[in-house]
Amino acid sequence: MAIISVQEADNPSSRIARFGPEKPLQMDAGPLLAPFSIAYQTYGELNADRSNAILVCHALTGDQHVASAHPLTQKPGWWSAMVGPGRPIDTDRFFVICSNVIGGCMGSTGPASTNPETGSPWGLDLPVVTVRDMVRAQAMLIDHLGIETLFCVAGGSMGGMQVLQWVASYPDRVFSALPIATAPKHSAQNIAFHEVGRQAVMADPDWRGGRYAQFGVRPTKGLAVARMAAHITYLSEGALQRKFGRKLQDRVAPTFSFDADFQIENYLRYQGSSFVDRFDANSYLYVTRACDYFDLAADYGGSLARAFVGAATRFCVVSFTSDWLYPTSDARLIVHALNAATLPVSFVEIETDKGHDAFLLDEPDFIATTRGFLESAAIARGIVQPSKAAAAK
Amino acid sequence: MAIISVQEADNPSSRIARFGPEKPLQMDAGPLLAPFSIAYQTYGELNADRSNAILVCHALTGDQHVASAHPLTQKPGWWSAMVGPGRPIDTDRFFVICSNVIGGCMGSTGPASTNPETGSPWGLDLPVVTVRDMVRAQAMLIDHLGIETLFCVAGGSMGGMQVLQWVASYPDRVFSALPIATAPKHSAQNIAFHEVGRQAVMADPDWRGGRYAQFGVRPTKGLAVARMAAHITYLSEGALQRKFGRKLQDRVAPTFSFDADFQIENYLRYQGSSFVDRFDANSYLYVTRACDYFDLAADYGGSLARAFVGAATRFCVVSFTSDWLYPTSDARLIVHALNAATLPVSFVEIETDKGHDAFLLDEPDFIATTRGFLESAAIARGIVQPSKAAAAK
Repeated sequence: MAIISVQEADNPSSRIARFGPEKPLQMDAGPLLAPFSIAYQTYGELNADRSNAILVCHALTGDQHVASAHPLTQKPGWWSAMVGPGRPIDTDRFFVICSNVIGGCMGSTGPASTNPETGSPWGLDLPVVTVRDMVRAQAMLIDHLGIETLFCVAGGSMGGMQVLQWVASYPDRVFSALPIATAPKHSAQNIAFHEVGRQAVMADPDWRGGRYAQFGVRPTKGLAVARMAAHITYLSEGALQRKFGRKLQDRVAPTFSFDADFQIENYLRYQGSSFVDRFDANSYLYVTRACDYFDLAADYGGSLARAFVGAATRFCVVSFTSDWLYPTSDARLIVHALNAATLPVSFVEIETDKGHDAFLLDEPDFIATTRGFLESAAIARGIVQPSKAAAAK
Repeated sequence: MAIISVQEADNPSSRIARFGPEKPLQMDAGPLLAPFSIAYQTYGELNADRSNAILVCHALTGDQHVASAHPLTQKPGWWSAMVGPGRPIDTDRFFVICSNVIGGCMGSTGPASTNPETGSPWGLDLPVVTVRDMVRAQAMLIDHLGIETLFCVAGGSMGGMQVLQWVASYPDRVFSALPIATAPKHSAQNIAFHEVGRQAVMADPDWRGGRYAQFGVRPTKGLAVARMAAHITYLSEGALQRKFGRKLQDRVAPTFSFDADFQIENYLRYQGSSFVDRFDANSYLYVTRACDYFDLAADYGGSLARAFVGAATRFCVVSFTSDWLYPTSDARLIVHALNAATLPVSFVEIETDKGHDAFLLDEPDFIATTRGFLESAAIARGIVQPSKAAAAK
């Protein structure tokens, strides 16, 4: 599995845009990154006036395989409920782009990618990546695809941060924006959970200062613990109680041992161990760090509203009642800032007990909200079916 | 530090009651434990009719040093705000007993204690301990001290579980009970966080299947990660935001690195690293497991009320508004059961943003609540000042 993962990092099972020395990526940390690559998937067809492109931004450990099988796990795309023919992000109608973030491990340049100067993986020699860097790289990809204005930028969690950053960085290039279950900055508690995860990775002796690939090992135990801790924050207390409660795993009485007596223990262990098969430990450090550094208002003199001034993007902000990672209060900060910047905004708080991960699930109210928002935005944008898709019908 | 810790496990800096083969401890897991020891501290004087004894039960990683300096850290006792001369648990008036739990590492028999059969630490050969085992051992200590009825049993968190168990197991021996920031059973989320901690410990190669002492090593990195994760659950999101927010640690700008840029990171790392100096990793497995197994109603056919039937104990149940580890809804379960069992109960929810750890802090409303409850209970019990303390005044 380690070998496969390295292959994905350099030669992904998806399209890839390679930017040479003449097109470096300016990073917030200072350096210019060149060469660098962005791995991406597209679905649907770009229409004649190039007005129907939707950029989907993935969350922390997501990837470009938004609506097609993951090359390592063979599982359906992570947002299959939302993206596809006839889905709210309708690939019969829209041209959907999803790229792996810079710092990721599925083909865009990240710590698992080969550093051309050394021939070894970048490891911690890769400059620390920010959400703004991710978005800057995506903008270069959009240029590369010959698209001037995106019809919509959509994403949940860290993907939502990218949505906000897109409008702030490129106000003229985003017609509509759908930030979901996200925050304009990382809170102390958010940072704290990420720091626990990083320390778990770094505490694993197989991490070897980030140079594990050179030693032919992987800090799988530390990374699994990191994922377990994070996973708790993706679910609500209520959902855990409903789903698992104190139910025992394949036994009728406690064993008085440290085995996984409880179903919740078994579930968490599975989450940890399956995660390490598809994700790179250093990449986990980079993407968590990018979130921690995210504080959009700070880049605009402390005023979040100022980040949006000059944009005309129409927004739909979505939160979930039981999301305690990025609770509705975070969404309200975004909405207030958009109001202050006089941007058109709808705000929908979805009632659900499924916690933060609700944005990845088939939540009827959420699906309907997205469909309605994109429908009305498409009318406003005057989007017609791409000729090819229309002909096929 | 490892050596000191082993000394505390066998020869604590406190009183110790040693129970020989003729007085084994019946454990829920099945075995009889003999010999075994209970390390304890006392404060104040037992009055002539032995009616003024308060048993304080400590939380997960607490110990018997409730109101005097910790022998390893030299820090003041963990409940100095509550216990001492003139404090609500007034040592001028009450005889206060606090014992280290079975499974602990400060002198009561636990995995760090020497197994007399092997001459090595028990490690995982010690049967898994339950909250009922802890209480059964405490009852033997109370017998040993010649006390028939406790004036009060008080404790927060896992200490509160022991309070509930005391009344259930020994309804005639508890005049009043003060369970604080606790729950009648561990929820799926509670178990999940504990499991993350245990997996962090066990992932540390220095854990060595629990036999680290024999190898002269300690799984400090894993234990520190476990503590960091747990510590987040002891604080509220609001308190973290107020105390730390996104403040940087000794720097004016982010370093774009994995250093502890943020104060919250520095704080958490400190919590992790200082914890390992005073606590045994295997003991952490045992005490977390005891909490996970706690489900008082399950021992009474699923009826929590039935656990309290036959008792006449007067209760004061305390919760804190911002405690998300054992929220007020857990306290309500206790109160409803006590009501159903027709026991006298006061219920106080304290308004605070300090989270679960509020019970350890100098919270004025909480201090006043405890003082008032013990005051009226002392009158009902007809407690007079112990002669010696009265003469000293």
